[in-house]
Amino acid sequence: MQASPSFYTQLNRSITDNNTLLCVGLDPVPKLIPQHLGTGLNALYTFCKAIVDATASLVCAFKPQIAHFSALGAEQQLVQLIQYIHEAYPGLPVILDAKRGDIGSTAELYAKEAFVRYCADAVTVNPYLGKESIQPFLDYPGRGTIVLCRTSNPDSAWLQKFPDDDPAFLKVAKAAVTWQKTSEVMLVAGATYPEEIAAIRDIATHVPLLVPGIGAQGGDLQKVLKAGLIDGTGMVINASRSIIYASADTDFAQAAGLAAIGLRDEINRYR
Amino acid sequence: MQASPSFYTQLNRSITDNNTLLCVGLDPVPKLIPQHLGTGLNALYTFCKAIVDATASLVCAFKPQIAHFSALGAEQQLVQLIQYIHEAYPGLPVILDAKRGDIGSTAELYAKEAFVRYCADAVTVNPYLGKESIQPFLDYPGRGTIVLCRTSNPDSAWLQKFPDDDPAFLKVAKAAVTWQKTSEVMLVAGATYPEEIAAIRDIATHVPLLVPGIGAQGGDLQKVLKAGLIDGTGMVINASRSIIYASADTDFAQAAGLAAIGLRDEINRYR
Repeated sequence: MQASPSFYTQLNRSITDNNTLLCVGLDPVPKLIPQHLGTGLNALYTFCKAIVDATASLVCAFKPQIAHFSALGAEQQLVQLIQYIHEAYPGLPVILDAKRGDIGSTAELYAKEAFVRYCADAVTVNPYLGKESIQPFLDYPGRGTIVLCRTSNPDSAWLQKFPDDDPAFLKVAKAAVTWQKTSEVMLVAGATYPEEIAAIRDIATHVPLLVPGIGAQGGDLQKVLKAGLIDGTGMVINASRSIIYASADTDFAQAAGLAAIGLRDEINRYR
Repeated sequence: MQASPSFYTQLNRSITDNNTLLCVGLDPVPKLIPQHLGTGLNALYTFCKAIVDATASLVCAFKPQIAHFSALGAEQQLVQLIQYIHEAYPGLPVILDAKRGDIGSTAELYAKEAFVRYCADAVTVNPYLGKESIQPFLDYPGRGTIVLCRTSNPDSAWLQKFPDDDPAFLKVAKAAVTWQKTSEVMLVAGATYPEEIAAIRDIATHVPLLVPGIGAQGGDLQKVLKAGLIDGTGMVINASRSIIYASADTDFAQAAGLAAIGLRDEINRYR
């Protein structure tokens, strides 16, 4: 199944129609799934579907993280989940968080995995192998390629901010400007480093940013938005654990909805 | 199933016992699989198994590339293939080529995918997210973590050789020396850049190298070996397409065996 409008079109419409920059990350962890749902891969799917239903009107995108499925052999549940989102909430884009990166011929297969097998509207990719490794994703018309630029984890400066005076992550930001001329790209910029979001925005003035690290990872929302917004948009703020595990009880879906409303509104206050 | 000896132990024994530095990459592509094997995922498994049987005595490791399976939904065939190698050729290590890289909590899941679900003895990982993203792999006792350092593709200099005077790939090589104190690590160093293999070897004097790019990608074998060998060992030379697609006819397995003998012997001439 392929949604007809392009990734950018779907994303912009969802941002406008739902008045939100929030993206909910679907990172199911068996031991955190409410006990009353049971165990096993069916419980995992039921949990994710309930979170989707509780938050679909509050988000501009969903972002399932593939390792949470592949570590368990739950590929079929991931296929079903993305299909369910497309059918129940047409026009709401799905970002597959896979952070793939390989030589060109293999990157073609990873692009096929994301866009054909899983029918994702966009996928995250890793730039360490060079532009050739990203091109096969860019070549899929109407799909989004979301390139790791400056990630949210504490240790990420090691290669990304190297060297100090001309860091690698800004080379990636510059490349994204070129890629955007012919393809629908975004950059991943962690909420934990708002001053670097500003540096990315100075270079990539029109490239939307996917921002993890709000919520459980603890980035400063107001600073982050100030650094990256373009006329109140141009950013997608992802939260996973703080939303989907808001309650471990029978009210988990309702609690996820309330947590999503809270974060959506907090984001909107600073737009 | 988990093999008892550690990755380094298995690798060193296989290098000695089979007198080879050759690793065969298992990269099945449906349109390249000999027609007489039929089509579909069963044909893919049959093809890979026949290549394994034809080359097992000629290699020190096998390296299945995961996108070749996941793009087709052939996870179960990959599980079966690795299980078959472990059962039929105990002690011969399997390197899962997955190039994973994510924040720590997600990297734990990718490590579980590689080492628990697929029972690989080692896995390739991407360093762009920092040391924290590699630690969960290093923490699996007796398993190998193979870090992308200087890859074989034409466009890889972009971030890896940046900046010129203190390139990122040598930072990765330095880190590998530290990791090797407590874990079994290797570095990926493409055959297309022998002078950079020499630079890696100068820093990482005892870290074994996994070298793709011989064969179809066209690296210079003699220069590569001169640059990276430690007393005739310390390198694993991978070839995929030039071996496994040596013939597209009913003699494909025999042709793969002959191609593997040819490359093994050529490597041994320069050891």
